Amino acid sequence: MSNRGQFITFEGTEGVGKSTQLANAASILKALSIDYIVTREPGGTPMAESIRELLLAPRAEPVNEITELLLMFAARAQHLHTRILPELEAGRWVLCDRFTDATFAYQGGGRGVPAERIAQLENLVQGSVRPDHVILLDAPVETGMTRARHRGELDRFEQEAVAFFERIRQTYLDRATGSPARYHIVDASQSLQAVSDEVSGLIRELADRA
Amino acid sequence: MSNRGQFITFEGTEGVGKSTQLANAASILKALSIDYIVTREPGGTPMAESIRELLLAPRAEPVNEITELLLMFAARAQHLHTRILPELEAGRWVLCDRFTDATFAYQGGGRGVPAERIAQLENLVQGSVRPDHVILLDAPVETGMTRARHRGELDRFEQEAVAFFERIRQTYLDRATGSPARYHIVDASQSLQAVSDEVSGLIRELADRA
Repeated sequence: MSNRGQFITFEGTEGVGKSTQLANAASILKALSIDYIVTREPGGTPMAESIRELLLAPRAEPVNEITELLLMFAARAQHLHTRILPELEAGRWVLCDRFTDATFAYQGGGRGVPAERIAQLENLVQGSVRPDHVILLDAPVETGMTRARHRGELDRFEQEAVAFFERIRQTYLDRATGSPARYHIVDASQSLQAVSDEVSGLIRELADRA
Repeated sequence: MSNRGQFITFEGTEGVGKSTQLANAASILKALSIDYIVTREPGGTPMAESIRELLLAPRAEPVNEITELLLMFAARAQHLHTRILPELEAGRWVLCDRFTDATFAYQGGGRGVPAERIAQLENLVQGSVRPDHVILLDAPVETGMTRARHRGELDRFEQEAVAFFERIRQTYLDRATGSPARYHIVDASQSLQAVSDEVSGLIRELADRA
């Protein structure tokens, strides 16, 4: 068993059950007596949480796309270097709700920021650090849009929203299939029990390997 | 006379008289009936000022060097794209207290962040945009340290501070001598009247050329 903790991130579009599966993974680690922390992006330290507030605050001023991208990575630099890396070095596992894959998916795939710009910032902030494992909870976008459908036909805004989330989902899937050793795609359209069983099995397997 | 405003930045270490010379330059433009705005970095828009507060707030948490650099450029992206460029395009001159030269001088020369990292972010945020003219108010570091000297010998912290500000000053001077057409070095150790006369003359000359 190596001394360094494993860095596991949870990714996926809204409504796929990330919080539930983070809590599930944490309970498995607890049962295995593996020390861990649960954290999230953007955020994870007081300063990074302040940056998160800046990012999420509603404001009259339109936020420049590059401003948003740099704030995201500023929070990430703080979180990674002052919290995540020290925890991993102390032997604790880090379970993180979203990380750089979300930036590629949302700002890149969703909003059209060129992937090479994001990759440049990823290298600047992270050097060669990447999550050891990414658990991608994947479900058809329609699953999340069901409520809208039940209200009747999708309006133009909702149709645009479908296209936006389809691009995000596709970016996630492309990244996952490109690095199958690090990415674990879990079909989140299954029953909650089936999803939880799959994630639990995965965490036990990673603990065996570690 | 071109329609686009001139983008003029004022640079230099603490205590060289930037605020006084910004006000002086503004009064010259006013006398010449040239429309202008006065702004500052980091800051210049409500969101960029919020980022400035984040940067300057005293906090227990040590701030990662890359976090600081990214916050600085996040504020700059917002300021440049939502305020400076629209003002220049509307024909107004922009007088700005510090800009990217300060990042090269303070974070680069002062704190040792590699210049190529800063240049990478400069290109990401600014593309090919650079100030049309940089007025560098230059004075020996000792001028600012006089007060400390008067209290007696410099202690180890003060000596480190001298070395820190010497590196900042030298970085400014190296950048200025490397691009003499855009940078104007003003000897700020002269009398206030002499410094003001030199800056006034420079602004009148730039107005003639514009």
